[in-house]
Amino acid sequence: MAPFLNRRDLQFQLFEALDTEALTARPRFAEHSREVYEDILNVAYTVADRYFANHTREGDLNEPHVVGGRVQLPAAVGEAMRAFREAGFFSAHHDEELGGLQLPWVVMQAVQAHFQAANVGSSGYPFLTIGNANLQRIFASPEQQQKYMLPLLEGRWFGTMALSEPQAGSGLADITTTATPLADGTYAISGTKMWISGGEHELSENIVHLVLARIAGGPAGVKGISLFLVPRYRVQADGSVGEGNHVVLAGLNHKMGYRGTTNTLLNFGEGGQTVGEIVGEPGRGLAQMFHMMNEARIGVGMGAVMLGTAGYLASLEYARDRRQGRHASNKDPHAPPVPIIEHADVRRLLLRQKAFVEGGLALGLYASLLVDDLQTGPEAERTDTGLLLDLLTPIVKSWPSRYSQEALSDAIQVMGGAGYTRDFPVEMYYRDNRLNPIHEGTEGIQGNDLLGRKLTQAGGRGLEILLARIQADLNASDDLSGLEDIRAALRTAVTQCTAALGALLPRAAELGPDLLLANANSALEMLGHTVVGWMWLRQATAAARALPGARPSDQPFYQGKLHAARFYATHELPKVRAHADLLASADRTTTDMHTDWF
Amino acid sequence: MAPFLNRRDLQFQLFEALDTEALTARPRFAEHSREVYEDILNVAYTVADRYFANHTREGDLNEPHVVGGRVQLPAAVGEAMRAFREAGFFSAHHDEELGGLQLPWVVMQAVQAHFQAANVGSSGYPFLTIGNANLQRIFASPEQQQKYMLPLLEGRWFGTMALSEPQAGSGLADITTTATPLADGTYAISGTKMWISGGEHELSENIVHLVLARIAGGPAGVKGISLFLVPRYRVQADGSVGEGNHVVLAGLNHKMGYRGTTNTLLNFGEGGQTVGEIVGEPGRGLAQMFHMMNEARIGVGMGAVMLGTAGYLASLEYARDRRQGRHASNKDPHAPPVPIIEHADVRRLLLRQKAFVEGGLALGLYASLLVDDLQTGPEAERTDTGLLLDLLTPIVKSWPSRYSQEALSDAIQVMGGAGYTRDFPVEMYYRDNRLNPIHEGTEGIQGNDLLGRKLTQAGGRGLEILLARIQADLNASDDLSGLEDIRAALRTAVTQCTAALGALLPRAAELGPDLLLANANSALEMLGHTVVGWMWLRQATAAARALPGARPSDQPFYQGKLHAARFYATHELPKVRAHADLLASADRTTTDMHTDWF
Repeated sequence: MAPFLNRRDLQFQLFEALDTEALTARPRFAEHSREVYEDILNVAYTVADRYFANHTREGDLNEPHVVGGRVQLPAAVGEAMRAFREAGFFSAHHDEELGGLQLPWVVMQAVQAHFQAANVGSSGYPFLTIGNANLQRIFASPEQQQKYMLPLLEGRWFGTMALSEPQAGSGLADITTTATPLADGTYAISGTKMWISGGEHELSENIVHLVLARIAGGPAGVKGISLFLVPRYRVQADGSVGEGNHVVLAGLNHKMGYRGTTNTLLNFGEGGQTVGEIVGEPGRGLAQMFHMMNEARIGVGMGAVMLGTAGYLASLEYARDRRQGRHASNKDPHAPPVPIIEHADVRRLLLRQKAFVEGGLALGLYASLLVDDLQTGPEAERTDTGLLLDLLTPIVKSWPSRYSQEALSDAIQVMGGAGYTRDFPVEMYYRDNRLNPIHEGTEGIQGNDLLGRKLTQAGGRGLEILLARIQADLNASDDLSGLEDIRAALRTAVTQCTAALGALLPRAAELGPDLLLANANSALEMLGHTVVGWMWLRQATAAARALPGARPSDQPFYQGKLHAARFYATHELPKVRAHADLLASADRTTTDMHTDWF
Repeated sequence: MAPFLNRRDLQFQLFEALDTEALTARPRFAEHSREVYEDILNVAYTVADRYFANHTREGDLNEPHVVGGRVQLPAAVGEAMRAFREAGFFSAHHDEELGGLQLPWVVMQAVQAHFQAANVGSSGYPFLTIGNANLQRIFASPEQQQKYMLPLLEGRWFGTMALSEPQAGSGLADITTTATPLADGTYAISGTKMWISGGEHELSENIVHLVLARIAGGPAGVKGISLFLVPRYRVQADGSVGEGNHVVLAGLNHKMGYRGTTNTLLNFGEGGQTVGEIVGEPGRGLAQMFHMMNEARIGVGMGAVMLGTAGYLASLEYARDRRQGRHASNKDPHAPPVPIIEHADVRRLLLRQKAFVEGGLALGLYASLLVDDLQTGPEAERTDTGLLLDLLTPIVKSWPSRYSQEALSDAIQVMGGAGYTRDFPVEMYYRDNRLNPIHEGTEGIQGNDLLGRKLTQAGGRGLEILLARIQADLNASDDLSGLEDIRAALRTAVTQCTAALGALLPRAAELGPDLLLANANSALEMLGHTVVGWMWLRQATAAARALPGARPSDQPFYQGKLHAARFYATHELPKVRAHADLLASADRTTTDMHTDWF
């Protein structure tokens, strides 16, 4: 069985392409060292391998179902949760005083990557729980944190985010779940929430839902939305779990993939009062939720990368083992068949996968390190860091979601009919990952966010910072020979991006928001492909610097990095142009289409 | 529930974009008329709607399984086979003296399209049977046709093609199934065949396998491969079904999709002698099988088109019904939500689907009409027709397989979370269609066929004919205003193709076959996208000519054709350039990659 993750690559990404070790110079991480991080990653690997990878297919085949009113999951899921809890991962990035290790977020993402790669379905429960606690850490009152957050950090209770409703998925402004003030300052929550992952199960003592709702009588639209902590079971004064809170499972969604994570339709206030506590001020719900959402968007991107990685490694192993055919130049029918990795088109499919998943991993970890910089980096740089992270977030979410799906399609293709069967995991990964372009904001939402908000906020400062960082990395590799084609391809792509945005954005007012956003997908594709090109320059630079002094056993790894960067530069970066040209033209083909012409 | 097929579009494709009616001037079709064809298509629609569309999801959920040694399928599959048989479709394209209607192949493909769209899984059984009979009609002896083909035309027996083996899928030269001559001129067949669709079931009285095998002592490689008729049950002198022929089901494959078609591992000669009859001369097996294979490749392309079509129509219906959000320019939170088809990015996703599936349909039917031209067109043109059909076949097989998958991904995306669940059919179509780039020759095989064989055979005459036909259609639309951008985009793409092939092909000997074929995927993408651009010019031309005289109720249809052509020209044809540039460079990135660098 192929490994689910390339540990050598993760090490390279964290400590060679990025300088994660430098974080230890910051006071919060002063007790850490590279060895500490590597030890923690080793634990993550062991737990993921033993307790998560062992039931990935079982979770897929035996999808959540209801028996006697309770959601049934394979027993192994509970074991996995216990192992994750015992390893301390629910609180590892939190303060020491809260029982955490003060792990940097980039290392925490690398930890989580193991579980996403090993079993994305089971990993959903802890990751929602961690995200929920992170939101509470910022916005909940000390009393609320004591009551609702600490049990999450201990892994005794789990968390969800409950935003969507049957009539409002992408359009959150139209949610109708209501919160009616009660005499004691709490609220009665009433309404139906849809697509709630981890919304019901028996894995934890309690479930803490973060629920968007409208306080009765408040304004329409997003301004009337507030955020509430709503437990499945009411919490007693001593913090123990009490009676039911009338959050009722109305149904399970039956998904194509990602089946290990139960996905629910929940009725709040059915058969009795559902009590919730407001988080912070009324009307701030969507803004607060976006904290969890932005974190989740990076997490979704990373999850896509890891599914793509697991598929790549499975198809790579197959391609090395499976013998079939001969080189086209060999006409001797008596010659033995070669491993299919010898065939150029199979190698193309493998290189494409490598370029997509390792490029995506570099991007996800780069963004995660920005989260650390935002929290612990030099104060003077934090505004810029935040703007860059804002700009990159829609790309980090959507690019790997899309291109890991391409990679997984390639993994199936490498394996042919075998890849299309349940005898191998790649068909499952392909089904699993197809969720990633949908949840936590569809690709369309990400495109609108990028072109309609992130590229123009603060006078376009985010783009300026991005371009300056790319330029700095181009300059920093200027002395390296062998990277000329990579640099040239990236420079061309950057020039095309700059020209297209320079042609479009000044016309935004004239074009109007509808036509502008009609071009959002082109912006997402153009910038996404370019940003990943930048990630490949950074990886190629690190590899080229390491190669001369590398041990012989490590040289193929660095050569592979250099060659995958070349592949991305020659096969992928030239695709930027078509998107840039379309964007520069402020294309109106989609807006000109009449609905009755379909 | 959305319709599975757009009948208006099929009519347009057959009788406006193509001149199928002109076939009635040929002696074989002299009794026909457009009305006859339309009546037959109406019957196909009715049968597909009542007897195939009714159990598509059932066939997916209740996948074939073995009980008591027999393959179990839903009862509705048997009903569907009966209805197909009673409608006379097993023999509709055959001679009247064989009980057929002498239907042109293009009309027969249009008939089959209904069943592929309604239920691709159940349609697999008749289509393999029809293909098997077509091969027999050309290569089997009159006695064999009497014995093995007539029951297929009656739909009493079904057929398969049995090529692959566990160690030889794409690499057919390495098959090891053996045929040992017996005293009476028949052969004892021994070996294992893998991936045999329709290889075992209880739907028909008998199953006739067309089996590739090696006569003991023959040459290695493809020259030693012969073709055999191997029935599941032996056939008695009076043509009735006799004792078992020791073709044993060794296992069923469990697929991601396409589950309605049983897919088997078969042992020949297990527990007794499997008797087969050779078709034609020894050593001609692969060449003979390629007749069925080429036909099946067009059928796979058409199947992909129809899955994409069914998904497009389902997502279109959803987009018209589902209300969510407002136009970006409307900031009033009290305004009612709009149908999501109003959002530009949803319209983009729908236009892309329309462009891919209707472009693919035009291509599949164009190729099918070439099959008619080859059989009944002017004698003097048949050599050229055959070369053009040869050139187009790998494109007809692979382009829709790939781009219907893109379309189906877009269909899911339009529907968001709903599209990812089993509440709607699009997730099933997405799983179903992922088989199409694999079976009947993978995409890699199609690329090699195109660049390594079809583009160079007969001195490149196939490409000459293709370019001449495109030029003729460009000239024929020259007087039409409003098509300028479409013509310009197609001309640019054609110029890029010509330049790239002009740069590459003269260097073929110098580069050697390995490096040449390393670039096969670029050739496939480049020519595929260009050829479909041509199909869109043809459709736009037909629409532009029809529009001025069209009834008001028909005008939106023609406007939609024109606009989808514009979309393809602006959003898709510009992608040709990156592939052409890569091809022209005789890229060596994939061949330069060392296997230990992964």
